[in-house]
Amino acid sequence: MLQEIQKRKSTRKYTSKPVSDNQIIQLIESARLAPSGSNTQPWNFIIVRADDIKSKIAEVNNNQAWMKNAPALIVCVADIRCRIKDDSEIYLDENSDLPELKQIIRDTAIAIEHILLEAESLGLSSCWTAWFTQDGIRPVLEIPNDKYVVGVVAIGYSDGEGKSAPRRPLESMIRHEKW
Amino acid sequence: MLQEIQKRKSTRKYTSKPVSDNQIIQLIESARLAPSGSNTQPWNFIIVRADDIKSKIAEVNNNQAWMKNAPALIVCVADIRCRIKDDSEIYLDENSDLPELKQIIRDTAIAIEHILLEAESLGLSSCWTAWFTQDGIRPVLEIPNDKYVVGVVAIGYSDGEGKSAPRRPLESMIRHEKW
Repeated sequence: MLQEIQKRKSTRKYTSKPVSDNQIIQLIESARLAPSGSNTQPWNFIIVRADDIKSKIAEVNNNQAWMKNAPALIVCVADIRCRIKDDSEIYLDENSDLPELKQIIRDTAIAIEHILLEAESLGLSSCWTAWFTQDGIRPVLEIPNDKYVVGVVAIGYSDGEGKSAPRRPLESMIRHEKW
Repeated sequence: MLQEIQKRKSTRKYTSKPVSDNQIIQLIESARLAPSGSNTQPWNFIIVRADDIKSKIAEVNNNQAWMKNAPALIVCVADIRCRIKDDSEIYLDENSDLPELKQIIRDTAIAIEHILLEAESLGLSSCWTAWFTQDGIRPVLEIPNDKYVVGVVAIGYSDGEGKSAPRRPLESMIRHEKW
C-alpha cells in the first residue's frame, strides 16, 4: 500500500517549524492534477498564513483553537461557475438542492485529498476540517455566495505522535455484484 | 511529487489481463483508511465482475460501452445512515437538499480517490465515472433509495498510452489570505 495512505492521520498539534511557499506550491500542484467530472476542475485554494485570519477561521470553524497554531491553512473553495456558466444569481449553502453543487463538492474533495497525501510525501502533516457553515466562513475570506467552501486543510509539522481513528472492518464495506 | 498523482490518468481501454481478488482487497483497504467527517466512514463498495451487470452499469452510465471491457468495476455507495440514524424514510437523488448528503458525497469521494492512487501504485489503471442518475443505477444493483452512488470506478490494466486531460494553470487556482 501507498505509504502516504497508511501513515496519514489527522494532526491537530503542530510545531512552530514553518512551511515554505515552495512546499505549498507542490501541494497545490498535486491538487491541480486531480481528476474531475468532465474535467471541470472546480477547485480554488486560498493560502492563509496571517494570524488574524487564521484566528477568525478557527473561530467560525467551531472554535477549534488548535488551528491557529498550524503554520498554514488552505481554504478549499469549489466554484459552481465551471458548470453553470450563465450570469444568474446563485446562492449556495448546506441546504442547496442544486445537482451541480454535489458534483463540485465531489471533485473538490478529490483534489483536497491529493493535498493531504502529497503533504505526507513531503514529511508534512495535515488535517481536513469542515466544522463551519458557508455563511460563517465566506465573509471571513470575502468569498462570494456562488462559491462553496468544501474544507479548510491545516498544514504543518506534527508535534508528537497522535493516533489514528478506528475504522470499520473491511468486510463490512464490501459487497459483490449487488447491494 | 507522489508518482501516483503524477502518473494517474483516466483509462478507458483495458487489456484482458484479470485483476485479482487480492488486488481489489488492497484497493478497498486503502479506501478504508481515508479520513471522513466525524470519522463517519460512509463508504461501501460493490465489486462487479459479472458481464451482465457490467453491461447494465455501462448502459445506465450514458452507454459508455468501454466499461464492459474493464475487468472489474467498483460501485462506490455512500450511506447517509451514518449521519441520520433514525428510521425515517429517506429518498436521495441529485436534487436532494439534505446537508448530510453533501457530507457523505465529500467523504466517499475522498475514499474513492484513495482507490485510484492505490491502483496506480499496484500498476493498475482506473477511471472515475459518474454519468448516471441515482434512479438509473440503483435498481441495477438493488441499492436502497437512502444510499447514494458517488461513482463507479473501472479497474484494470491499461491497453496503450492514453493522454492526460489539460489542466488550468496553477496560478489561476491560488489566492492569498482572501478570495
